[in-house]
Amino acid sequence: MAESIINLTRGVPPVNVFPVEDLIECGQAALQRDPSILLQYSTTGYVPLREWLGEQYGVGPDWVLTGNSSLEIFSFITQVLLSPGKRAFVESPSYDRAITLLRRAGADLVGIPLEEDGVNLSALEAELERGAPALMYVIADFQNPMGGTTSLEKRKRLVALAEEYDFWIVEDAPYRKLRYWGDDVPSMWSLSPERVLHMSSFSKVLSPGLRLGYVVGSVEIIAALSRWAMDSYICPVLPTQGMVYEYCRRGLLESNIEHLKQVYRPRLKAILSALNERIPQTTWTRPEGGFFVSGVLPEGNSVVNLQKRAREDGLKLTDGRGFFPNPADGERFLRIPFCSLSLAEIEEGVSRLARLL
Amino acid sequence: MAESIINLTRGVPPVNVFPVEDLIECGQAALQRDPSILLQYSTTGYVPLREWLGEQYGVGPDWVLTGNSSLEIFSFITQVLLSPGKRAFVESPSYDRAITLLRRAGADLVGIPLEEDGVNLSALEAELERGAPALMYVIADFQNPMGGTTSLEKRKRLVALAEEYDFWIVEDAPYRKLRYWGDDVPSMWSLSPERVLHMSSFSKVLSPGLRLGYVVGSVEIIAALSRWAMDSYICPVLPTQGMVYEYCRRGLLESNIEHLKQVYRPRLKAILSALNERIPQTTWTRPEGGFFVSGVLPEGNSVVNLQKRAREDGLKLTDGRGFFPNPADGERFLRIPFCSLSLAEIEEGVSRLARLL
Repeated sequence: MAESIINLTRGVPPVNVFPVEDLIECGQAALQRDPSILLQYSTTGYVPLREWLGEQYGVGPDWVLTGNSSLEIFSFITQVLLSPGKRAFVESPSYDRAITLLRRAGADLVGIPLEEDGVNLSALEAELERGAPALMYVIADFQNPMGGTTSLEKRKRLVALAEEYDFWIVEDAPYRKLRYWGDDVPSMWSLSPERVLHMSSFSKVLSPGLRLGYVVGSVEIIAALSRWAMDSYICPVLPTQGMVYEYCRRGLLESNIEHLKQVYRPRLKAILSALNERIPQTTWTRPEGGFFVSGVLPEGNSVVNLQKRAREDGLKLTDGRGFFPNPADGERFLRIPFCSLSLAEIEEGVSRLARLL
Repeated sequence: MAESIINLTRGVPPVNVFPVEDLIECGQAALQRDPSILLQYSTTGYVPLREWLGEQYGVGPDWVLTGNSSLEIFSFITQVLLSPGKRAFVESPSYDRAITLLRRAGADLVGIPLEEDGVNLSALEAELERGAPALMYVIADFQNPMGGTTSLEKRKRLVALAEEYDFWIVEDAPYRKLRYWGDDVPSMWSLSPERVLHMSSFSKVLSPGLRLGYVVGSVEIIAALSRWAMDSYICPVLPTQGMVYEYCRRGLLESNIEHLKQVYRPRLKAILSALNERIPQTTWTRPEGGFFVSGVLPEGNSVVNLQKRAREDGLKLTDGRGFFPNPADGERFLRIPFCSLSLAEIEEGVSRLARLL
């Protein structure tokens, strides 16, 4: 163990949780049943999957766009809703790839300081006074990279502000189903279905290589995004959408999520207890689900400096600056993914980190 | 037959040519062999497929980017190479969806009149004198929508001009392997591998629902496009790339293409002979492969006017204007796809068209 490298950088599932045989069987069954749809051009994602997803949210298929990853759907959203110079708000810190896409769309990017229970509302209101954004991107559940969950009170205030100032909230919820303890908080979409675009995917609950993401929203905006998607690639990859539809239809998704929770729950418990015990000088977030825990190291530290020494000690760390619209704000920010680590690796990884600090 | 509608609009393969059972078996074999790659995040398309494609072109995998359709790869090309106001040249007429993406990228779109053996070189040279483009989009083999093939002489001149005026040629070649008679003409990419981006896909030679396209080009531009793709969706859908790799590896693609040629060759022969016999007042192109034949109706006609009357007679026609950068140039242009039509439908469809004219 002492020699092996422990990777605390990537938010990826461990490969041994992929239900390979079930996916093979479902892919086969789907292609056998519906080859003339799944192998042909279409003007949309696979309709039975859009219907199934709609049912989960209590809406019809015209409220659902499926695509080749929720990240790419977000890139369509940025291209449809933004243009150079328009404002876009994100939590600070936020998902680095979302920040990249907002910058690529030419947005005037504004970070709203994130607390463990959601953004700082005074800071948000002050920014709104300076100018409303076209959209605000929020990861309300088990936030990437912070790990916290936006409280119901803050969610209500966020959608009220979105209605008042007339902007879209893009709620990215890939971790939402992976709650290891505590109670679900209503999605922002459920609080304001006409004002929120709710994105999610099968990457964290099934397999990332499928690149199957979706967005739920009101008919008009979904139609506009669907036209943008069709102009971009005619239709998304269909055989994998058939495979996933079959997997869901058979009721396998729910039991897979239960299995994942059983695998990940003790890992989150272990990392929280190891971090708080061995590195008490840092305040760590207290996630109840998802893939990440995080902390801001005491003053005088820098993750970039730490990275080099860590590598010599067999530990890979993520430079936190990419998660912040203003990179300098992330110099002491450390994101720690735990889902791919065994309990022994968690113990050893945190020990190494404690020695370094 | 008299009652059934004959569709002369869509360039799609007939569903009964999809090798469903082989694809199912290959999808299964691929996932069984390589689940930890095909179901996980990657930073690129499936490497064995990129290697296999590279071998077809005599280059390494770093010359090949695979993605979720060649159309989307073209959208990446437009985003990487163009910015608002830069010039982009296309053949006039050209593929309507490519025109849409060039407009979306803000390009100053210039159509170069297309003759059956390639663009009019004098017109091209005159436009180059006005200002070189960032890229020129060319479908050199069995052009969509015209059906013709650019001659070797014109290909040589095109790449020479691209070198002289320092612009990229994007060679879109989805129909290239579907030559029903005559001899292959060397691809423009083979004439100037550092100056041409060669795009193709599995849509016309295997199945469009797979949305599996690729581009071949020199290492530096492929790296730039790969970064853009990664920022857009991390990696393309992988299980279908595994499926297609397995299909190719087993040598099934070649025999599938042979089968398709046997199906489509008599259809092209039939439509050419029916058109020239029944509607001799129009000069029809003389394609040797691909999906389309086309003609410009005699003066005084308009495809839009014809469309309405055709619908009453059970015939669906495509408005030709979308294929032209200047839509008015396409008022009398009629594109006729033939691959999805049986010989009886071809006979009956052309009869109906002849009656209308």
